[in-house]
Amino acid sequence: MSIYDDLPLDRVCHAPLTPLRFLDRAEQYFADRTSVVSGEIALTWRETAARCRRLASALARRGVGPGDTVSVLAPNGLAIYEAHFGVPMTGAVLNAVNTRLEPETVAYILAHCEAKVLLVDTEFSELARQALATLAHPPLVVDIADPGGPGGARIGSIEYEDLLAEGDPAFRSAQPSSELQPITLGYTSGTTGKPKGVVYDHRNAFVESLGNMLALGVSGRPRLVWVVPIFHANGWCYLWPMAGVGATNILVRKPSGGAILGLIARHGATHVFGAPVIAQMIAQVPAAERPVLSHKVRMLTAGAPPTAAQFLALEQMGIDLDQGYGLSEVWGPAIFREPQEEWAAMAPAERAALKVRQGIPNLVLDSAIVADPLTLEPVPRDGATLGEVMFRGNVVMRGYLKNPEATREAFAGGYFHSGDLAVWHPDGAIELKDRSKDIIISGGENISSIEIENAICAHPHVLSAAVVGVPSARWGESPFAFVEIRDGVALDAAELEAHCRARLASFKVPCGFAFGPIPKTATGKVQKFLLRQQARENAA
Amino acid sequence: MSIYDDLPLDRVCHAPLTPLRFLDRAEQYFADRTSVVSGEIALTWRETAARCRRLASALARRGVGPGDTVSVLAPNGLAIYEAHFGVPMTGAVLNAVNTRLEPETVAYILAHCEAKVLLVDTEFSELARQALATLAHPPLVVDIADPGGPGGARIGSIEYEDLLAEGDPAFRSAQPSSELQPITLGYTSGTTGKPKGVVYDHRNAFVESLGNMLALGVSGRPRLVWVVPIFHANGWCYLWPMAGVGATNILVRKPSGGAILGLIARHGATHVFGAPVIAQMIAQVPAAERPVLSHKVRMLTAGAPPTAAQFLALEQMGIDLDQGYGLSEVWGPAIFREPQEEWAAMAPAERAALKVRQGIPNLVLDSAIVADPLTLEPVPRDGATLGEVMFRGNVVMRGYLKNPEATREAFAGGYFHSGDLAVWHPDGAIELKDRSKDIIISGGENISSIEIENAICAHPHVLSAAVVGVPSARWGESPFAFVEIRDGVALDAAELEAHCRARLASFKVPCGFAFGPIPKTATGKVQKFLLRQQARENAA
Repeated sequence: MSIYDDLPLDRVCHAPLTPLRFLDRAEQYFADRTSVVSGEIALTWRETAARCRRLASALARRGVGPGDTVSVLAPNGLAIYEAHFGVPMTGAVLNAVNTRLEPETVAYILAHCEAKVLLVDTEFSELARQALATLAHPPLVVDIADPGGPGGARIGSIEYEDLLAEGDPAFRSAQPSSELQPITLGYTSGTTGKPKGVVYDHRNAFVESLGNMLALGVSGRPRLVWVVPIFHANGWCYLWPMAGVGATNILVRKPSGGAILGLIARHGATHVFGAPVIAQMIAQVPAAERPVLSHKVRMLTAGAPPTAAQFLALEQMGIDLDQGYGLSEVWGPAIFREPQEEWAAMAPAERAALKVRQGIPNLVLDSAIVADPLTLEPVPRDGATLGEVMFRGNVVMRGYLKNPEATREAFAGGYFHSGDLAVWHPDGAIELKDRSKDIIISGGENISSIEIENAICAHPHVLSAAVVGVPSARWGESPFAFVEIRDGVALDAAELEAHCRARLASFKVPCGFAFGPIPKTATGKVQKFLLRQQARENAA
Repeated sequence: MSIYDDLPLDRVCHAPLTPLRFLDRAEQYFADRTSVVSGEIALTWRETAARCRRLASALARRGVGPGDTVSVLAPNGLAIYEAHFGVPMTGAVLNAVNTRLEPETVAYILAHCEAKVLLVDTEFSELARQALATLAHPPLVVDIADPGGPGGARIGSIEYEDLLAEGDPAFRSAQPSSELQPITLGYTSGTTGKPKGVVYDHRNAFVESLGNMLALGVSGRPRLVWVVPIFHANGWCYLWPMAGVGATNILVRKPSGGAILGLIARHGATHVFGAPVIAQMIAQVPAAERPVLSHKVRMLTAGAPPTAAQFLALEQMGIDLDQGYGLSEVWGPAIFREPQEEWAAMAPAERAALKVRQGIPNLVLDSAIVADPLTLEPVPRDGATLGEVMFRGNVVMRGYLKNPEATREAFAGGYFHSGDLAVWHPDGAIELKDRSKDIIISGGENISSIEIENAICAHPHVLSAAVVGVPSARWGESPFAFVEIRDGVALDAAELEAHCRARLASFKVPCGFAFGPIPKTATGKVQKFLLRQQARENAA
């Protein structure tokens, strides 16, 4: 018994941590400022807050509440944006589904999460129709007929705007009864096996929201071009806190380099969020077609490691590229490479070589280590020893839905096991080397496919590269490279091999090269499982 | 029962929120950078972290643990800095005591919080000796013999550095068993009645830490000149998170305008924290003695509202002055006035007039309202109607120690009642008008003493002003002004009265003026209770 034991835990000083309060702040203090721009539509925070409450109210009237799942299958637009507030306001869980998935996977997800409502953009109504056809208990389907979209059939029982019209704009959001109430469910894009459902709670979202804003050093009111699909890790868990600071959110439905640059110029954007493939898209816009940017722009990229070439190209355009590293289970840039003071004095190439490192844990993560996957013994900070990246803290998911076995395995030993292999540099920065399943083991040596890809991308004619292992009678495995060449230039395997020999140890030089488009997921991740099949066929 | 109900709450994804982890981050990622500069001493984060663990270890070996209180009576220096980590690492509560208090009050505090240990700087050993003499159960006394201090007698049983030498630098900090464990106890400088002990827990500290960093828009690694005494609201709850970003903390033991400017120049400081009186001290440094600042500096002020004149003077020196508003019970800048885009185009005086408004709630506060103290009905946002400022959220104190009655009263109706009167502007910014007990009621009209003080301070010869009410047979109360004049200029009551008549409604013009030094607390707060006595004598 101590003198401190009888202090009350009053609601005045102890409220559930939830990102829903960020919308309240936007409405209270930035009501007349532009909240969301989608195609030709621009709303104010007063309007956005009322629309989110209408959505919550309409869903609640149709029986949606705590413990239910509402799925959304849509590209960036008003509906998926508003669902991030409106759905949790009812107490339900938001499930944003990747629009690039096959019908079977979408069906699996909707069945697994027992979706009670599906909001689907008409561009994806055929995908949804096929998925819904297989369900024993199909959800209520709401069509999103985005005027900025390409049209498409309506397959639902009501359109999104009509649903909003049913709702009460003065609906009082039930603050979560507990900050441990789930808020989102996102499925991993697992390349093997069934996707796993990653659940986060309100507390996770609040803490990571603050960590994200601090990692990016946000101050003032950002004007943010959303190229990354919001369905990808809930906009890297930046969607909610950006509302809290009254940011203007410019939603890009279908990206192109020219369109993105146009939006940056038109809206005086301060930030762009997009996968590395988007950085490349921007860099490829011919100089003559680039608008003059009168202000500093920062681009945040995540989801795949950007190459030094991408950093260089954007820097030349006046865009500072930063990268965050996370994965579905630790959304947002759990690891972030903050610009270093020393970089200012460096040559661009030297700086770019340092920028490719993923960085250090953000301020709210308890711990991130690079360690032996079995013993959890951290590797030395020597920039050379390979280990697995592991996370612990309030930004790690609560677990996989209906899959306690997979959760236990992922959390073995008190850390979340990412499956990503990295080295740890003396300054504490983590540098990804590979997914553990993508590492190439040749003659007993671990070869990082990322290292080889970076070497290939240093060739001025190369646009992008992806390296996988192919079976080798002699070495067990050997690296094989897929390469995309820039328009209007020529490059052959012999020249590229010589380029690699000058840069890599001989056992790391690819045994073969294939030229052509590289298959990527919606979020810019290279589909290495497809490439492995192709490489085996090419090598055979 | 829902599909989400069986998700485990694993330590991998749910750790106590505590600011202690910020020191871990500093040591992990900024080990070789300068942590703390105090006089001629400069340490690295590796050293600071080891010293904090030594302190924790030595205290733990002497029996300090959860539920205990460790008091510190010291100006800015290594000991009070390190105690902010070292004491909570043992599980105990840190009580930082204002060094300007009288012996009776220090005695009251040490007895009330049942201090088990007192760390006391030798400059204040006489104060401590007198306080300790009255205690039935005196604590273990540790002398802090700061080489940067003026000396003074040792009254303890061990010196601070010798205590550290007893400790184990590899001590493993017990993370708090719960984030609701108390971390600090600070006493209000109540001008009437006994001071009340304000208790915060680890969760409060973590959440407010993040809110503070976001309010200030911190990015990169700040170099921060601490002029505000750290004993004041734990350095406005910035001490912990600044460690998390590897900031360099330059501790000022005894401030002077010239010394502060010198430290800014020498260390390339990015930030200065100090009360408005410090802003004035800096502004008074003669132009010829000011170092040339090659970079932008931001000064954060809190504890009392700065005047427009102070904003103007610092801006002319290249120092951006920002203000936060909080009070003991909502430490740090719970309300913060973020620089507005529109300000850039304004004339300095126009900008300064807007900057004096205190601002809007920071991102982590649930709610701050200006409302009727009894009905809790918010006042209109008209910039004119007076109401009381009230707070709710995770940055509000847990309560007053051993004083459930005062806690209940302060939390009446679900909000913390600040006792501060303010108006609410249409843009949501709160502007303080007075402490409720300082408001002057004259002929039935509420008169804001701050408004009159600002009008007086607009006179170029005035350094500072404080206005209180004096009894008036006709009006009930009338305003009376105390004025400090700049060196080398002359000003009389008649001229100042004319100046006020040109700016204020006639009932607000002071009925009398007194010239001379204005008594202030250690934190720059004017001691209006003393002035009221004096004014009564002057007027009599």
